Amino acid sequence: MPRIPDSHRDLLSAQVATLATVGADGRPQQSEVWFLAEDDDTVRLSLSGARQKTKNLLANPVVGLVVLDLAGPHRYLELRGDATLEPDPDYVFADRVGAKYGADLRKMDRPGDVRYVVTINPTRVRAVDMSRR
Amino acid sequence: MPRIPDSHRDLLSAQVATLATVGADGRPQQSEVWFLAEDDDTVRLSLSGARQKTKNLLANPVVGLVVLDLAGPHRYLELRGDATLEPDPDYVFADRVGAKYGADLRKMDRPGDVRYVVTINPTRVRAVDMSRR
Repeated sequence: MPRIPDSHRDLLSAQVATLATVGADGRPQQSEVWFLAEDDDTVRLSLSGARQKTKNLLANPVVGLVVLDLAGPHRYLELRGDATLEPDPDYVFADRVGAKYGADLRKMDRPGDVRYVVTINPTRVRAVDMSRR
Repeated sequence: MPRIPDSHRDLLSAQVATLATVGADGRPQQSEVWFLAEDDDTVRLSLSGARQKTKNLLANPVVGLVVLDLAGPHRYLELRGDATLEPDPDYVFADRVGAKYGADLRKMDRPGDVRYVVTINPTRVRAVDMSRR
């Protein structure tokens, strides 16, 4: 996995990221998402299978994620690669995400929804600082 | 064109947006970009043909743009659709973008670069406020 440089590692603790998936029509679809980067710098999301972005990833695992420095939006981190999705029926990972955000992700799901751990496996990492151009 | 609701129209004056294109490998590619929304709410970018995102759009016009409220990142605007690209050899549009940002876009190009006006033609507009869910 490409390394996330020290200059941008703080962004792994940010609150929101912009996820990009590709829909059945071939168009990129973007949304703001919660995320969690654990000790190994691997970025994972907890997504409900009821959401369009999750359906997109199940059909086509290509994925992008941007974390913008909200306090200095000249600086951002882009991960680009493929996602792997694993069901999280007992909310084990969802609870770790919930601990970051002070939320219970169970309350966001309807009966029958399948919650997934979505792991971003980057083939490319871009750490951008536009103020240095 | 789908309308941009009043609740999110202020975001058209924001400083940065996250552009998504799709590369030759089918993966979404995202980057922070300057943009200009003029009187008709149409969002346009001024991009150099030397940049990968521009090459992606010339080959495949599918496009997405997210404008995040940096002061309250629960709120954002997503445009999804197709881009049209027109050369801007005299920097007519580039100068309007430059006026917004206090910059001369000519200085960002190398000799021989072609500068394009990139118009976002949305087929879908999503005005999201996650605090209202």
